[in-house]
Amino acid sequence: MLTIYHGANTRSVRVIWLAEELGLSYEIKTIKFLEKEHKEPAYLAINPLGKLPAIQDGDLHLYESGAICDYLIAKAGATNLEPERGTSDYGLCRQWVYFAEATLMASIGAIAQHTMLRPEEDRIPQVRDEAIESTAKGLSILEAALKDKEYLCGDTFSLADIMTGYDLHLANMFGQVTDAYPNLKAYQARLSARPGFQKAVA
Amino acid sequence: MLTIYHGANTRSVRVIWLAEELGLSYEIKTIKFLEKEHKEPAYLAINPLGKLPAIQDGDLHLYESGAICDYLIAKAGATNLEPERGTSDYGLCRQWVYFAEATLMASIGAIAQHTMLRPEEDRIPQVRDEAIESTAKGLSILEAALKDKEYLCGDTFSLADIMTGYDLHLANMFGQVTDAYPNLKAYQARLSARPGFQKAVA
Repeated sequence: MLTIYHGANTRSVRVIWLAEELGLSYEIKTIKFLEKEHKEPAYLAINPLGKLPAIQDGDLHLYESGAICDYLIAKAGATNLEPERGTSDYGLCRQWVYFAEATLMASIGAIAQHTMLRPEEDRIPQVRDEAIESTAKGLSILEAALKDKEYLCGDTFSLADIMTGYDLHLANMFGQVTDAYPNLKAYQARLSARPGFQKAVA
Repeated sequence: MLTIYHGANTRSVRVIWLAEELGLSYEIKTIKFLEKEHKEPAYLAINPLGKLPAIQDGDLHLYESGAICDYLIAKAGATNLEPERGTSDYGLCRQWVYFAEATLMASIGAIAQHTMLRPEEDRIPQVRDEAIESTAKGLSILEAALKDKEYLCGDTFSLADIMTGYDLHLANMFGQVTDAYPNLKAYQARLSARPGFQKAVA
Protein backbone atom coordinates (compact mmCIF):
# COMPACT_ATOMS: atom_id res chain seq x y z
CA MET A 1 0.00 0.00 0.00
CA LEU A 2 1.19 3.49 -0.87
CA THR A 3 1.08 5.94 2.05
CA ILE A 4 1.09 9.66 1.28
CA TYR A 5 2.07 12.05 4.07
CA HIS A 6 -0.12 15.05 3.44
CA GLY A 7 -0.57 18.57 4.71
CA ALA A 8 -3.36 20.86 3.50
CA ASN A 9 -2.18 23.13 0.66
CA THR A 10 1.38 21.77 0.75
CA ARG A 11 3.12 20.12 -2.21
CA SER A 12 1.47 16.82 -1.19
CA VAL A 13 -1.48 18.15 -3.25
CA ARG A 14 0.59 17.22 -6.32
CA VAL A 15 1.14 13.65 -5.14
CA ILE A 16 -2.51 12.96 -4.29
CA TRP A 17 -3.59 14.53 -7.57
CA LEU A 18 -1.16 12.33 -9.51
CA ALA A 19 -2.22 9.21 -7.60
CA GLU A 20 -5.82 10.00 -8.59
CA GLU A 21 -4.89 10.56 -12.25
CA LEU A 22 -3.01 7.23 -12.25
CA GLY A 23 -5.85 5.43 -10.47
CA LEU A 24 -3.58 4.24 -7.66
CA SER A 25 -4.73 2.90 -4.32
CA TYR A 26 -3.27 4.90 -1.45
CA GLU A 27 -3.84 5.97 2.11
CA ILE A 28 -3.30 9.46 3.45
CA LYS A 29 -1.57 10.28 6.71
CA THR A 30 -2.31 13.88 7.52
CA ILE A 31 0.46 15.81 9.21
CA LYS A 32 -0.86 18.80 11.14
CA PHE A 33 1.18 21.57 9.56
CA LEU A 34 -0.01 24.47 11.71
CA GLU A 35 0.68 22.42 14.85
CA LYS A 36 4.23 21.81 13.56
CA GLU A 37 3.82 18.02 13.53
CA HIS A 38 6.20 18.03 10.53
CA LYS A 39 9.00 19.22 12.85
CA GLU A 40 8.57 16.35 15.34
CA PRO A 41 11.14 13.48 15.47
CA ALA A 42 8.68 10.86 14.17
CA TYR A 43 8.19 12.79 10.92
CA LEU A 44 11.79 13.99 10.67
CA ALA A 45 12.82 10.32 10.57
CA ILE A 46 10.79 10.06 7.35
CA ASN A 47 11.75 13.44 5.86
CA PRO A 48 14.75 15.12 7.53
CA LEU A 49 13.82 18.40 5.84
CA GLY A 50 10.64 18.51 7.90
CA LYS A 51 8.63 19.32 4.78
CA LEU A 52 5.66 17.75 3.07
CA PRO A 53 5.08 15.52 1.19
CA ALA A 54 6.76 12.20 1.80
CA ILE A 55 5.60 8.73 0.84
CA GLN A 56 6.10 5.20 2.03
CA ASP A 57 5.83 2.48 -0.60
CA GLY A 58 6.77 -0.92 0.83
CA ASP A 59 10.18 -0.39 2.46
CA LEU A 60 10.86 2.78 0.51
CA HIS A 61 10.56 6.25 2.02
CA LEU A 62 10.81 9.17 -0.40
CA TYR A 63 10.53 12.93 -0.20
CA GLU A 64 10.68 15.83 -2.73
CA SER A 65 7.33 16.06 -4.53
CA GLY A 66 8.90 16.09 -8.02
CA ALA A 67 10.86 12.93 -7.25
CA ILE A 68 7.78 11.18 -5.87
CA CYS A 69 5.83 12.04 -9.02
CA ASP A 70 8.64 10.85 -11.31
CA TYR A 71 8.87 7.61 -9.32
CA LEU A 72 5.12 6.91 -9.35
CA ILE A 73 4.89 7.57 -13.10
CA ALA A 74 7.91 5.39 -13.86
CA LYS A 75 6.55 2.61 -11.63
CA ALA A 76 3.16 2.78 -13.36
CA GLY A 77 4.85 1.95 -16.67
CA ALA A 78 3.26 3.36 -19.83
CA THR A 79 0.97 6.27 -18.95
CA ASN A 80 -0.37 9.21 -20.92
CA LEU A 81 1.04 11.66 -18.36
CA GLU A 82 4.34 12.27 -20.14
CA PRO A 83 5.26 12.52 -23.83
CA GLU A 84 7.39 9.73 -25.30
CA ARG A 85 10.80 9.73 -23.59
CA GLY A 86 13.60 11.47 -25.44
CA THR A 87 11.39 13.49 -27.81
CA SER A 88 11.34 17.29 -27.98
CA ASP A 89 7.92 17.27 -26.32
CA TYR A 90 9.39 15.21 -23.51
CA GLY A 91 12.14 17.79 -23.05
CA LEU A 92 9.61 20.63 -22.90
CA CYS A 93 7.48 18.72 -20.42
CA ARG A 94 10.52 18.26 -18.19
CA GLN A 95 11.29 21.98 -18.54
CA TRP A 96 7.89 22.92 -17.11
CA VAL A 97 8.19 20.34 -14.33
CA TYR A 98 11.44 21.89 -13.08
CA PHE A 99 10.21 25.42 -13.80
CA ALA A 100 7.21 24.74 -11.55
CA GLU A 101 9.26 23.40 -8.66
CA ALA A 102 12.76 24.88 -8.79
CA THR A 103 11.88 28.31 -10.19
CA LEU A 104 8.26 29.42 -9.69
CA MET A 105 7.56 27.69 -6.36
CA ALA A 106 10.68 29.28 -4.88
CA SER A 107 9.05 32.68 -5.43
CA ILE A 108 5.54 31.68 -4.38
CA GLY A 109 6.94 29.97 -1.28
CA ALA A 110 8.75 33.19 -0.34
CA ILE A 111 5.46 35.12 -0.63
CA ALA A 112 3.83 32.56 1.68
CA GLN A 113 6.69 32.78 4.19
CA HIS A 114 6.90 36.55 4.27
CA THR A 115 3.19 37.37 4.31
CA MET A 116 1.69 34.54 6.37
CA LEU A 117 3.77 31.61 7.63
CA ARG A 118 6.55 33.38 9.55
CA PRO A 119 6.01 35.25 12.80
CA GLU A 120 5.60 38.92 11.87
CA GLU A 121 8.95 39.91 13.34
CA ASP A 122 10.78 37.51 11.00
CA ARG A 123 9.14 38.72 7.78
CA ILE A 124 11.29 40.82 5.45
CA PRO A 125 9.37 43.29 3.25
CA GLN A 126 12.15 43.40 0.61
CA VAL A 127 12.06 39.62 0.24
CA ARG A 128 8.25 39.69 -0.07
CA ASP A 129 8.39 42.42 -2.73
CA GLU A 130 11.11 40.65 -4.74
CA ALA A 131 9.12 37.40 -4.51
CA ILE A 132 5.98 39.10 -5.82
CA GLU A 133 8.02 40.49 -8.71
CA SER A 134 9.64 37.17 -9.61
CA THR A 135 6.30 35.36 -9.29
CA ALA A 136 4.82 37.83 -11.79
CA LYS A 137 7.73 37.13 -14.15
CA GLY A 138 7.15 33.38 -13.85
CA LEU A 139 3.41 33.74 -14.42
CA SER A 140 4.06 35.90 -17.50
CA ILE A 141 6.29 33.19 -18.96
CA LEU A 142 3.53 30.61 -18.41
CA GLU A 143 0.91 33.00 -19.86
CA ALA A 144 2.96 33.23 -23.08
CA ALA A 145 3.61 29.47 -23.16
CA LEU A 146 -0.14 28.75 -22.93
CA LYS A 147 -1.10 30.85 -25.96
CA ASP A 148 -3.38 28.66 -28.12
CA LYS A 149 -2.69 25.62 -25.94
CA GLU A 150 -4.93 23.64 -23.63
CA TYR A 151 -2.07 22.29 -21.55
CA LEU A 152 1.61 23.07 -21.12
CA CYS A 153 2.82 20.15 -23.24
CA GLY A 154 0.19 20.66 -25.96
CA ASP A 155 -3.24 19.07 -26.22
CA THR A 156 -2.66 16.41 -23.58
CA PHE A 157 -2.78 16.84 -19.82
CA SER A 158 0.56 15.82 -18.29
CA LEU A 159 2.69 15.80 -15.16
CA ALA A 160 3.80 19.35 -16.03
CA ASP A 161 0.20 20.49 -15.46
CA ILE A 162 0.04 18.78 -12.06
CA MET A 163 3.29 20.37 -10.95
CA THR A 164 2.24 23.80 -12.26
CA GLY A 165 -1.40 23.52 -11.21
CA TYR A 166 -0.32 23.36 -7.58
CA ASP A 167 1.77 26.51 -8.07
CA LEU A 168 -1.25 28.32 -9.52
CA HIS A 169 -3.49 27.09 -6.71
CA LEU A 170 -1.10 28.67 -4.21
CA ALA A 171 -0.37 31.80 -6.26
CA ASN A 172 -4.12 32.34 -6.56
CA MET A 173 -4.56 32.02 -2.77
CA PHE A 174 -2.08 34.88 -2.46
CA GLY A 175 -3.89 37.02 -5.06
CA GLN A 176 -1.21 36.76 -7.74
CA VAL A 177 -3.22 35.19 -10.59
CA THR A 178 -4.89 38.37 -11.80
CA ASP A 179 -6.88 39.30 -14.91
CA ALA A 180 -3.55 40.26 -16.48
CA TYR A 181 -3.19 36.54 -17.30
CA PRO A 182 -6.25 35.44 -19.34
CA ASN A 183 -4.62 32.27 -20.73
CA LEU A 184 -3.49 31.30 -17.26
CA LYS A 185 -6.92 31.88 -15.72
CA ALA A 186 -8.63 29.71 -18.36
CA TYR A 187 -5.95 27.05 -17.88
CA GLN A 188 -6.38 27.12 -14.13
CA ALA A 189 -10.14 26.69 -14.56
CA ARG A 190 -9.52 23.60 -16.73
CA LEU A 191 -7.15 22.13 -14.16
CA SER A 192 -9.42 22.92 -11.20
CA ALA A 193 -12.28 21.07 -12.85
CA ARG A 194 -10.40 17.77 -12.75
CA PRO A 195 -11.68 15.35 -10.09
CA GLY A 196 -8.13 14.48 -9.05
CA PHE A 197 -7.34 18.08 -8.25
CA GLN A 198 -10.58 18.51 -6.33
CA LYS A 199 -9.85 15.44 -4.24
CA ALA A 200 -6.30 16.65 -3.53
CA VAL A 201 -7.42 20.03 -2.19
CA ALA A 202 -10.52 18.77 -0.36
CA MET B 1 24.62 19.42 -33.21
CA LEU B 2 23.88 20.09 -29.55
CA THR B 3 24.66 23.66 -28.47
CA ILE B 4 25.12 24.37 -24.76
CA TYR B 5 24.80 27.96 -23.57
CA HIS B 6 27.33 28.18 -20.80
CA GLY B 7 28.43 30.59 -18.12
CA ALA B 8 31.40 29.91 -15.84
CA ASN B 9 30.31 28.35 -12.53
CA THR B 10 26.59 28.46 -13.45
CA ARG B 11 24.33 25.40 -13.62
CA SER B 12 25.58 24.84 -17.20
CA VAL B 13 28.46 23.02 -15.47
CA ARG B 14 25.98 20.17 -14.92
CA VAL B 15 25.03 20.00 -18.59
CA ILE B 16 28.59 19.96 -19.92
CA TRP B 17 29.58 17.39 -17.30
CA LEU B 18 26.65 15.16 -18.30
CA ALA B 19 27.42 15.58 -22.02
CA GLU B 20 30.97 14.43 -21.28
CA GLU B 21 29.78 11.42 -19.24
CA LEU B 22 27.44 10.45 -22.10
CA GLY B 23 30.14 10.96 -24.72
CA LEU B 24 28.00 13.44 -26.67
CA SER B 25 29.28 15.82 -29.33
CA TYR B 26 28.43 19.42 -28.49
CA GLU B 27 29.49 22.99 -28.96
CA ILE B 28 29.63 25.60 -26.24
CA LYS B 29 28.37 29.16 -26.59
CA THR B 30 29.74 31.13 -23.68
CA ILE B 31 27.48 33.83 -22.29
CA LYS B 32 29.42 36.51 -20.45
CA PHE B 33 27.67 36.44 -17.11
CA LEU B 34 29.50 39.30 -15.41
CA GLU B 35 28.82 41.52 -18.47
CA LYS B 36 25.10 40.63 -18.15
CA GLU B 37 24.93 39.12 -21.65
CA HIS B 38 22.29 36.74 -20.22
CA LYS B 39 19.96 39.72 -19.76
CA GLU B 40 20.18 40.85 -23.41
CA PRO B 41 17.25 40.28 -25.82
CA ALA B 42 19.14 37.74 -27.95
CA TYR B 43 19.59 35.43 -24.98
CA LEU B 44 16.19 36.18 -23.41
CA ALA B 45 14.61 34.87 -26.63
CA ILE B 46 16.25 31.52 -25.80
CA ASN B 47 15.67 31.57 -22.03
CA PRO B 48 13.14 34.18 -20.85
CA LEU B 49 14.38 33.73 -17.27
CA GLY B 50 17.72 35.17 -18.29
CA LYS B 51 19.50 32.32 -16.52
CA LEU B 52 22.02 29.72 -17.60
CA PRO B 53 22.06 27.09 -18.97
CA ALA B 54 19.98 26.65 -22.07
CA ILE B 55 20.50 24.29 -24.98
CA GLN B 56 19.60 24.13 -28.65
CA ASP B 57 19.19 20.65 -30.12
CA GLY B 58 17.91 20.83 -33.68
CA ASP B 59 14.80 23.04 -33.51
CA LEU B 60 14.41 22.55 -29.77
CA HIS B 61 15.38 25.17 -27.22
CA LEU B 62 15.31 24.10 -23.58
CA TYR B 63 16.17 25.65 -20.24
CA GLU B 64 16.21 24.45 -16.60
CA SER B 65 19.35 22.38 -16.00
CA GLY B 66 17.47 19.45 -14.46
CA ALA B 67 15.15 19.25 -17.46
CA ILE B 68 18.05 19.41 -19.91
CA CYS B 69 19.79 16.55 -18.08
CA ASP B 70 16.61 14.42 -17.98
CA TYR B 71 16.09 15.06 -21.70
CA LEU B 72 19.67 14.21 -22.71
CA ILE B 73 19.62 10.99 -20.67
CA ALA B 74 16.24 9.94 -22.07
CA LYS B 75 17.39 10.72 -25.61
CA ALA B 76 20.58 8.70 -25.13
CA GLY B 77 18.47 5.61 -24.40
CA ALA B 78 19.92 3.02 -22.04
CA THR B 79 22.70 4.57 -19.96
CA ASN B 80 24.26 3.67 -16.62
CA LEU B 81 23.50 7.13 -15.24
CA GLU B 82 20.17 6.23 -13.66
CA PRO B 83 18.93 3.08 -11.90
CA GLU B 84 16.28 1.02 -13.66
CA ARG B 85 13.10 3.10 -13.98
CA GLY B 86 10.41 2.48 -11.39
CA THR B 87 12.65 0.73 -8.84
CA SER B 88 13.25 1.99 -5.30
CA ASP B 89 16.78 2.99 -6.31
CA TYR B 90 15.31 5.00 -9.16
CA GLY B 91 13.04 6.82 -6.71
CA LEU B 92 15.97 7.63 -4.41
CA CYS B 93 18.03 8.86 -7.34
CA ARG B 94 15.19 11.20 -8.33
CA GLN B 95 14.96 12.38 -4.72
CA TRP B 96 18.58 13.53 -4.76
CA VAL B 97 18.18 15.15 -8.18
CA TYR B 98 15.34 17.37 -6.91
CA PHE B 99 17.00 17.85 -3.53
CA ALA B 100 20.08 19.20 -5.32
CA GLU B 101 18.16 21.65 -7.49
CA ALA B 102 14.92 22.61 -5.73
CA THR B 103 16.16 22.49 -2.13
CA LEU B 104 19.93 22.81 -1.67
CA MET B 105 20.69 25.11 -4.63
CA ALA B 106 18.01 27.54 -3.44
CA SER B 107 20.06 28.06 -0.27
CA ILE B 108 23.47 28.11 -1.95
CA GLY B 109 22.15 30.52 -4.59
CA ALA B 110 20.95 32.86 -1.84
CA ILE B 111 24.44 32.82 -0.29
CA ALA B 112 25.90 33.73 -3.69
CA GLN B 113 23.36 36.53 -4.20
CA HIS B 114 23.73 38.05 -0.76
CA THR B 115 27.51 37.82 -0.39
CA MET B 116 28.76 38.42 -3.95
CA LEU B 117 26.40 38.79 -6.91
CA ARG B 118 24.13 41.63 -5.78
CA PRO B 119 25.27 45.21 -5.37
CA GLU B 120 26.14 45.69 -1.71
CA GLU B 121 23.14 47.92 -1.02
CA ASP B 122 20.74 45.13 -2.13
CA ARG B 123 22.21 42.41 0.07
CA ILE B 124 20.18 41.39 3.13
CA PRO B 125 22.22 40.01 6.05
CA GLN B 126 19.23 38.08 7.47
CA VAL B 127 18.72 36.29 4.15
CA ARG B 128 22.43 35.46 3.96
CA ASP B 129 22.45 34.08 7.50
CA GLU B 130 19.33 31.98 6.95
CA ALA B 131 20.80 30.67 3.69
CA ILE B 132 24.02 29.64 5.44
CA GLU B 133 21.94 27.82 8.05
CA SER B 134 19.73 26.01 5.53
CA THR B 135 22.80 25.11 3.42
CA ALA B 136 24.37 23.53 6.51
CA LYS B 137 21.19 21.54 7.09
CA GLY B 138 21.21 20.32 3.48
CA LEU B 139 24.90 19.38 3.66
CA SER B 140 24.26 17.46 6.91
CA ILE B 141 21.53 15.44 5.22
CA LEU B 142 23.92 14.58 2.37
CA GLU B 143 26.69 13.75 4.86
CA ALA B 144 24.39 11.20 6.53
CA ALA B 145 23.18 9.81 3.19
CA LEU B 146 26.78 9.19 2.07
CA LYS B 147 27.73 7.06 5.08
CA ASP B 148 29.45 3.91 3.71
CA LYS B 149 28.53 4.86 0.14
CA GLU B 150 30.67 5.89 -2.82
CA TYR B 151 27.84 7.73 -4.56
CA LEU B 152 24.37 8.98 -3.66
CA CYS B 153 22.56 6.12 -5.38
CA GLY B 154 24.94 3.43 -4.11
CA ASP B 155 28.05 2.07 -5.81
CA THR B 156 27.36 3.57 -9.21
CA PHE B 157 27.91 7.16 -10.32
CA SER B 158 24.62 8.69 -11.51
CA LEU B 159 22.83 11.86 -12.55
CA ALA B 160 22.18 12.57 -8.85
CA ASP B 161 25.94 12.97 -8.39
CA ILE B 162 26.19 15.42 -11.29
CA MET B 163 23.33 17.53 -9.95
CA THR B 164 24.75 17.45 -6.40
CA GLY B 165 28.39 17.75 -7.44
CA TYR B 166 27.67 21.18 -8.90
CA ASP B 167 26.03 22.23 -5.61
CA LEU B 168 29.12 21.13 -3.70
CA HIS B 169 31.44 22.90 -6.14
CA LEU B 170 29.58 26.14 -5.44
CA ALA B 171 29.13 25.55 -1.70
CA ASN B 172 32.87 24.92 -1.46
CA MET B 173 33.63 28.18 -3.28
CA PHE B 174 31.64 29.91 -0.53
CA GLY B 175 33.49 28.08 2.26
CA GLN B 176 30.54 25.94 3.34
CA VAL B 177 32.02 22.43 2.81
CA THR B 178 34.01 22.27 6.04
CA ASP B 179 35.80 19.46 7.89
CA ALA B 180 32.50 18.88 9.72
CA TYR B 181 31.52 16.79 6.67
CA PRO B 182 34.17 14.06 6.17
CA ASN B 183 31.94 11.85 3.98
CA LEU B 184 31.04 14.83 1.84
CA LYS B 185 34.65 15.93 1.43
CA ALA B 186 35.74 12.45 0.31
CA TYR B 187 32.75 12.28 -2.05
CA GLN B 188 33.56 15.68 -3.51
CA ALA B 189 37.14 14.56 -4.10
CA ARG B 190 35.86 11.50 -6.01
CA LEU B 191 33.56 13.68 -8.13
CA SER B 192 36.20 16.34 -8.79
CA ALA B 193 38.59 13.68 -10.13
CA ARG B 194 36.24 12.83 -13.00
CA PRO B 195 37.42 14.17 -16.37
CA GLY B 196 33.88 15.32 -17.22
CA PHE B 197 33.73 17.55 -14.14
CA GLN B 198 37.17 18.95 -14.84
CA LYS B 199 36.20 19.81 -18.40
CA ALA B 200 32.96 21.47 -17.22
CA VAL B 201 34.69 23.79 -14.75
CA ALA B 202 37.74 24.52 -16.94
